[in-house]
Amino acid sequence: MSDSTISKNNNIQTVIDILAQQLGEKLKTGQSIREQHSHTTTMIEPQLPDAVVFADSDADIQAVVDVCARYKVPIIPFGVGTSLEGHVNAPEGGISIDMGQMNQILQVNPEDMDCVVQPGVTREQLNEYLRDTGLFFPIDPGANATIGGMTATRASGTNAVRYGTMRENVISVNVITPNGKEIKTANRARKSSAGYDLTRLFVGSEGTLGVYTSITLKLHPIPQQILSGVCPFPTVEAASQAVIATIQMGIPMARIELLDAMQIKASNLYSKLDNAEQPTLFLEFHGSDEEIKSQAELFTEIAEDFGGSEPQFSTVLEDRNKLWKARHDAYWAARSFRPNTKVIGTDACVPISRFSECITESQKDIEELGLVATFVAHAGDGNFHTQLLIDTKSETEVKNSAEYISRLNKRAIAMEGTCTGEHGVGQGKQKYLEIELGESVEFMRMIKQTFDPDNIMNPGKIFSLTE
Amino acid sequence: MSDSTISKNNNIQTVIDILAQQLGEKLKTGQSIREQHSHTTTMIEPQLPDAVVFADSDADIQAVVDVCARYKVPIIPFGVGTSLEGHVNAPEGGISIDMGQMNQILQVNPEDMDCVVQPGVTREQLNEYLRDTGLFFPIDPGANATIGGMTATRASGTNAVRYGTMRENVISVNVITPNGKEIKTANRARKSSAGYDLTRLFVGSEGTLGVYTSITLKLHPIPQQILSGVCPFPTVEAASQAVIATIQMGIPMARIELLDAMQIKASNLYSKLDNAEQPTLFLEFHGSDEEIKSQAELFTEIAEDFGGSEPQFSTVLEDRNKLWKARHDAYWAARSFRPNTKVIGTDACVPISRFSECITESQKDIEELGLVATFVAHAGDGNFHTQLLIDTKSETEVKNSAEYISRLNKRAIAMEGTCTGEHGVGQGKQKYLEIELGESVEFMRMIKQTFDPDNIMNPGKIFSLTE
Repeated sequence: MSDSTISKNNNIQTVIDILAQQLGEKLKTGQSIREQHSHTTTMIEPQLPDAVVFADSDADIQAVVDVCARYKVPIIPFGVGTSLEGHVNAPEGGISIDMGQMNQILQVNPEDMDCVVQPGVTREQLNEYLRDTGLFFPIDPGANATIGGMTATRASGTNAVRYGTMRENVISVNVITPNGKEIKTANRARKSSAGYDLTRLFVGSEGTLGVYTSITLKLHPIPQQILSGVCPFPTVEAASQAVIATIQMGIPMARIELLDAMQIKASNLYSKLDNAEQPTLFLEFHGSDEEIKSQAELFTEIAEDFGGSEPQFSTVLEDRNKLWKARHDAYWAARSFRPNTKVIGTDACVPISRFSECITESQKDIEELGLVATFVAHAGDGNFHTQLLIDTKSETEVKNSAEYISRLNKRAIAMEGTCTGEHGVGQGKQKYLEIELGESVEFMRMIKQTFDPDNIMNPGKIFSLTE
Repeated sequence: MSDSTISKNNNIQTVIDILAQQLGEKLKTGQSIREQHSHTTTMIEPQLPDAVVFADSDADIQAVVDVCARYKVPIIPFGVGTSLEGHVNAPEGGISIDMGQMNQILQVNPEDMDCVVQPGVTREQLNEYLRDTGLFFPIDPGANATIGGMTATRASGTNAVRYGTMRENVISVNVITPNGKEIKTANRARKSSAGYDLTRLFVGSEGTLGVYTSITLKLHPIPQQILSGVCPFPTVEAASQAVIATIQMGIPMARIELLDAMQIKASNLYSKLDNAEQPTLFLEFHGSDEEIKSQAELFTEIAEDFGGSEPQFSTVLEDRNKLWKARHDAYWAARSFRPNTKVIGTDACVPISRFSECITESQKDIEELGLVATFVAHAGDGNFHTQLLIDTKSETEVKNSAEYISRLNKRAIAMEGTCTGEHGVGQGKQKYLEIELGESVEFMRMIKQTFDPDNIMNPGKIFSLTE
């Protein structure tokens, strides 16, 4: 067989024909299904796969990888499509593998506080399932993403400040690699020095090195008590200083989130709240009654030192939800704040000493560029999101939004931070990755090329191989 | 130049001549210095490098890498030589780079709770330096190892149960790679989704992918209060069940170590103590006064449930040291327990549900094989060390020790654990790595070969490339 003489399209049709024969109704080529598997939450146009396979077993994944490898056709793993940098787009066509039916929880080991799940399990599904065990899986990126998608993008979210990110909470993965072999990256021990850390290599690889078939996760004890709090500050700077002091004191915050004044305004309108329109910290403490009480007292003293208002606290679920409503509804509030606009969420992460400076300068950019945006931050990690509300019919706004994102990323990098704290590189952040890590990207490409010489696994993501 | 026609020894002499000219007195070829840089704490014979370079700058490292790369001569990075699996041996000769003078602390960023150090900084030196900042670096593998060595072996130790291992505490590394380029694997942000996790790839790579020039570490707040405790149990099983319950309750133990009855006996003799000769947990709690009080109360209840004795506790430094003396002196106590023997420490790590079974069966092996050994465990992680006391003049003991190590590793792997929780693979655990991870090792080799095609970086470690 000489692939090089067959055009790419011919190959794709061959692959579709073979897979249709092998997988029957699991393979779909309808326009609307292909569109659903290429939508993105970015400004990048949807790029449709040629077909979608709804896999429901390792064998299905194996079949897709084998056939695609033989004909050098791209494979794009798909969870629920909540990623924010165009990860599920198919710029070179190919087969999207929908993992939605790979949703079995294969093992829960309560004594070991771990579990093994298929990649299509969603985090809410997992926590629902775990409820009676006294354990939970903490990583919470907001959307009800799949564990596979969260692993692929090295996701984190509101409580990474205490529980870490997917990097710290994935024990091992089983992966079908581009050469068709299934490997297990580690055993179930909680720590290991057994050779190169392949687990961490696959966490955050954005589908470019293989397709997960199962993922082993660390679980954590459900806290005895949860205390939620809200505390407005006069400035982002003051709130940031309070966050730094809180963490330096060793208060083990479960969540410490910052909303800027504009976001509070949007949330007041959307959720009919009357929060002071100031930069505000949303807090959560996990522990025993004594622990959360003493932690909240310490935090209150710190907040006062930095000019914060008296925090409001509650341990009662209903009141906790009310206190945190502005945070929970932040995305929807931003959306409705400026109707008929597209919301683009872009993330950056800096050392916390530069956090308030980075946000404040970014807010100035928004003003200078005539844009509308809100800011929501995982303040404890120095990680923040700008939610740009873009009138896509205005060429100026579209152009200025791109300019904003460029300035944001370059500023974060100049402050020794990163162009992406938790969303991944995908299609949107490739040029900033090069600025951030320079020569290191060449070593990433070397790994990609040695694992996937024909570049069939989610091509066009993280970095370009053709430049 | 055609290297293949020049014998390896000729190349080495050429490299030594060039480096002697470039580096002068920093290069040493004396027998005793070469011996000091190849001693191992294993049964493997010392394998001497041809020369040792005492590097004191990035430029020195760059010079060694450039010249060795040109002549395809091995490079063996050397910290203080406390590794336990033969990592500093030079099975193919070459140049050992002694990092002892690369011992500058380059940055401490208290607000960001991180620091940047040269690889030759030791952990005690770092913590001494940090004392006035209110921060500390928690990873404690026992020996006063270098940060470079700890990074290379993905070390951990007594308080990994709370603070994680080097995997979780290295933010980024600067490395000179075999092609002579210096790369930085990440910026200083506390989390990142910026491409493949090269940081984690270099952590635990055992010097096989490059030579570190600097390492950025997370720091932690010095706890407000430290409470130490000791609690004997009737059996290893009972102690293990108490550990599992403690962790499931969410008690954030800083240290929870197990010594077996034989180790307690050795420690009583060596340190003139009168601890009950039973499996015993050594505990440490970090937090505010209220936190450690409530945690110690909870632990006491749990210990009682599983038949443990009333724990002894103290917050006073002198008493804490006394309580923990048996643990602190464990290695020296084992050594003196059977004079004129060699102590070989070997580690394995299993899911905690299998921990007591794994230790108990291993103790039976020791008895059956007519060996003498003590057991010391990082119980919270399911990680334990057998300290074999081997009369190296007895062929039977030497043979049976090898048999023991083989059984131990295979047992740990069969229990879904690992042949090395924290010591690394080095020379000693290569065949077990293959058993543990199978096909995955092939992917490690692929990474090695693409980064280091001439296999100059610490050859003969982790895996063989020639089989």
